[in-house]
Amino acid sequence: MSDRKRILSGMRPTGPLHLGHYYGVIANWLKLQEEYDCFFFVADWHALTSEYSNARNIKNYVPGLVQDWVASGLDPEKCVIFQQSSIKEHAELQLLLSMVTPLGWLERNPTYKEQQEQLAAKDINTHGFLGYPVLMAADILMYLPFGVPVGKDQLPHVELMREIARRFNHLYDTELLPEPEALLTEEAKLPGLDGRKMSKSYDNGIALSDSMDDIMPKVRGMLTDKNRLRKSDPGDPSICNLFPYHKLMTDPARLPEIEEGCRNASWGCVDCKKLLLESMERFLTPIQERRSKLDADTIQDIVNAGNDRAREFAQRTMAQVREAMGFDF
Amino acid sequence: MSDRKRILSGMRPTGPLHLGHYYGVIANWLKLQEEYDCFFFVADWHALTSEYSNARNIKNYVPGLVQDWVASGLDPEKCVIFQQSSIKEHAELQLLLSMVTPLGWLERNPTYKEQQEQLAAKDINTHGFLGYPVLMAADILMYLPFGVPVGKDQLPHVELMREIARRFNHLYDTELLPEPEALLTEEAKLPGLDGRKMSKSYDNGIALSDSMDDIMPKVRGMLTDKNRLRKSDPGDPSICNLFPYHKLMTDPARLPEIEEGCRNASWGCVDCKKLLLESMERFLTPIQERRSKLDADTIQDIVNAGNDRAREFAQRTMAQVREAMGFDF
Repeated sequence: MSDRKRILSGMRPTGPLHLGHYYGVIANWLKLQEEYDCFFFVADWHALTSEYSNARNIKNYVPGLVQDWVASGLDPEKCVIFQQSSIKEHAELQLLLSMVTPLGWLERNPTYKEQQEQLAAKDINTHGFLGYPVLMAADILMYLPFGVPVGKDQLPHVELMREIARRFNHLYDTELLPEPEALLTEEAKLPGLDGRKMSKSYDNGIALSDSMDDIMPKVRGMLTDKNRLRKSDPGDPSICNLFPYHKLMTDPARLPEIEEGCRNASWGCVDCKKLLLESMERFLTPIQERRSKLDADTIQDIVNAGNDRAREFAQRTMAQVREAMGFDF
Repeated sequence: MSDRKRILSGMRPTGPLHLGHYYGVIANWLKLQEEYDCFFFVADWHALTSEYSNARNIKNYVPGLVQDWVASGLDPEKCVIFQQSSIKEHAELQLLLSMVTPLGWLERNPTYKEQQEQLAAKDINTHGFLGYPVLMAADILMYLPFGVPVGKDQLPHVELMREIARRFNHLYDTELLPEPEALLTEEAKLPGLDGRKMSKSYDNGIALSDSMDDIMPKVRGMLTDKNRLRKSDPGDPSICNLFPYHKLMTDPARLPEIEEGCRNASWGCVDCKKLLLESMERFLTPIQERRSKLDADTIQDIVNAGNDRAREFAQRTMAQVREAMGFDF
């Protein structure tokens, strides 16, 4: 292993990667892989906590997710890309940590309460769903990382993980498990086409694998400043759903022109959408070119190689965990 | 595999095997190994659910437990003897089954409530302890057995396991998991030396590995009919704490003589204890002779061989489980 600090992050395979994922997560991962020893994993067991009745869907999304990651620039030479369910040690560590995790910590977890309400229709009041933060703690602590890149909404989970690590260390009089830092990242949140959060369940996203033929009608149908009925009406970019896309995807040098043109009605929504389509094409073309060269075998090879590296690390950690507990046979 | 029906049973490594275990469990296992394909396992992960803060103790009890089993007559040629924590597939199946197990089923489990009260001092209100029946379901269902030998107090767990199997089969439209039958066995309950349940925590037992020097003072100190103060007082075997031992350990032909002699005051408690010591010596001598020949390496070889057979079976089952779920990679 190198001397760089280690971090770990994962993503659930719940569908094709969209622009919201790219700007919210992947763009950050691309920076992190240059600076840290990164382990990035497909959290397929995690996806089961809420999607257990559609296990086959989860499975089918896995190769495409890795394909999207690598096409976006994750470099298997620089980081370890692996699949959670291939590393059985995660299940063992989850089991061991669940023994020392008080129920009250899980029941008080705000994300648990919130998700239970949101997903009430899905019948997820299960032992596995309640134990989601324990599984997450196992996934992360397994790689003894310095930190985890997370959004603000994940902070309670990180705190819970740190408490679990502390309790383990205290119980077994060890310093084995770290208390990983939350690496809060400035989140570039890209709204969905309809202005809500970009999400597969709202069907309001643009996938990295969408063709320009898919994208054109989507962009044409986007809501802009709804008070601007005609091109001759002045518009307000700050309440336009398109403008955040320009801020992330269009040459920054052109932004003042767009903003000013919108406000003084010299630049219309049709111009704006045309320019965004050009920006998207410029952004997506290289990703999609790389994507088209990553066939199923190549992806499987990448995952297999990453799994081998992750497994080796995980087996070493588990030996240390069992030894620390006095449970090494 | 043979054509015999398969059954599975386990025991927690919480201390040396005592006579209560022998008559309550092992005597039955000895019969079962002649009739069924038996998998008997050391439930060391289970022991962690309540003893997680003493993991090292659990570890230390494992070899002695297997030694006791084999010395008592379990035959590694006839049955598979294995150690739960060596078969990592149990952790994976536990994780998968926990996804489909409603919390309410676990919270309503009467044994859970009861044990929580009894073990309140032990701080076992943990995610792992609540999930105990899920782990038990994973342990058992892994071997697709026809049945499980259990005592009456385990019936709610068996029913819960059958519900989990049904829910899995229903969700994934499969018939893979069986609904194992509870093989209720006539339990020969041997009271402890003080009349309470024989238990390590009451320190009122006789271990299979106790020497006659250990045993003599224990038997001499046993309570008999407390209304019989002198040998000339008639006694009542039905309220004597010694008599149940004779019923299990002494030549049945001698029982009428003992019972009658006690009732008509011709046979005293000292005679009774002397005879019991003879019976115990006759019972324990062959067990301890076999035990002394089972050195650590032999025990480890037996466990390793059993683990290999169990693991092969478990890996086959897990492939079927993942395939049934559509989660096979």
